[in-house]
Amino acid sequence: MTLKLYVDRMSQPSRAILIFCRVNGIDFEEVRVDLSKRQHLSPEFREVNPMKKVPAIMDGRFKLFESHAILRYLACVYPGVADHWYPADVYTRAKIESVLDWHHSNLRQGAASFVLHTALAPALGLPLDPKVAAQSEMLLSASLAKIESFWLKGKGRFLLGNLQPSIADLSFVCEIMQLEVLDEEIRSRILGPHKKVLKWIDDTKNATQPHFDEIHTILLKVKEKLKKMSSAGGSSQTNVSNKSVLPSKI
Amino acid sequence: MTLKLYVDRMSQPSRAILIFCRVNGIDFEEVRVDLSKRQHLSPEFREVNPMKKVPAIMDGRFKLFESHAILRYLACVYPGVADHWYPADVYTRAKIESVLDWHHSNLRQGAASFVLHTALAPALGLPLDPKVAAQSEMLLSASLAKIESFWLKGKGRFLLGNLQPSIADLSFVCEIMQLEVLDEEIRSRILGPHKKVLKWIDDTKNATQPHFDEIHTILLKVKEKLKKMSSAGGSSQTNVSNKSVLPSKI
Repeated sequence: MTLKLYVDRMSQPSRAILIFCRVNGIDFEEVRVDLSKRQHLSPEFREVNPMKKVPAIMDGRFKLFESHAILRYLACVYPGVADHWYPADVYTRAKIESVLDWHHSNLRQGAASFVLHTALAPALGLPLDPKVAAQSEMLLSASLAKIESFWLKGKGRFLLGNLQPSIADLSFVCEIMQLEVLDEEIRSRILGPHKKVLKWIDDTKNATQPHFDEIHTILLKVKEKLKKMSSAGGSSQTNVSNKSVLPSKI
Repeated sequence: MTLKLYVDRMSQPSRAILIFCRVNGIDFEEVRVDLSKRQHLSPEFREVNPMKKVPAIMDGRFKLFESHAILRYLACVYPGVADHWYPADVYTRAKIESVLDWHHSNLRQGAASFVLHTALAPALGLPLDPKVAAQSEMLLSASLAKIESFWLKGKGRFLLGNLQPSIADLSFVCEIMQLEVLDEEIRSRILGPHKKVLKWIDDTKNATQPHFDEIHTILLKVKEKLKKMSSAGGSSQTNVSNKSVLPSKI
């Protein structure tokens, strides 16, 4: 086994890559880079990824980081991966590239920043910034509205109206899953208005089970811990202060 | 001629696509979407790109947006494009994908936000936010430092130590070129410490002349206008208020 995945399951793109490998029968060794212990800043990990971020991979001597690049690479080099994940047809692939690129400045930026400034910041020793949280919520909601009205148009159940999931579906849904750590009320406010998005999340989960749920178990555990802390200490989700609960970088 | 490029030369990814087509002898029709006249919000353009952003293309009936996706697509479908722009080899290509994906959350976010909050915001009817400008400068400078110390490592003159430019070089350098509209002093403070970056910008320009300079003429004109306004009205670069000078979205 030469493929090593350097991941932390608290990181949404790490989860996407783990699920992708599991679903496609790609053998790998999972090397945990514990973000809560700041292992991504260690000299050893810097040799794997000088940008000090997970996920990263080593396939033999070949090193790679950036989750979309990793998913594309794995889809291309591992022969067992079905074409629908990253179609060879140049036109179909171009559309998937468009979705993947759109992710960065829209859904990713909105979701990651919103969760940080709504729940995670204090656990990372950072101040909450309500102004940034509000701006992020706007971007996140606008992104979900675009997924609902545009990317999920068409006959199929998946992005671009496809009949089967692509790496973009997996990447997006894992991104959205981080909202699981938020209060149910906040999550409902954000996701509730988007019925097609909710159905597509379920469809993507179903297409990748049992791996999807197993890899996401960690989020449910964190949510439980946050709930207990909240009810025990009377602290709301926005002033969690136990540094051991949450990682430093997701 | 069936390839239509919907662009505004004030937009950095629009410039990258125009230069790419010129350099590679790809015939196209340039359809100007005048951002200063808010043409990107028009119903006609929404038919081309529902996200209301330039650049976008129509190649016959095939529509595409997101600049990296467009560059990949053009490199794949037009047979005259040399391999070095987007190599077919899966390992070499994967590294270029990694650079392209890194662009979004680093150089792009830093540069675009810094220029907006240092110079362009008032011209767009937006308030300047010095806190955001300072944060953006940190991200921009950190991104340039990473380009200098990591992406430009190796023997070649281009990103990843390549001997010839890829679509990533073109995309990055066009991004950095937007700093041209800033005061010389600010530009020197940002770019000055990065000698390899400065040389690489020149190398990328030289590899794509005369098209590079021609497509960038617009920036020099804007810079001149800003200078004149500054000296005539005594206004600094940070309180430009002439809405006709600058576009609404780059």
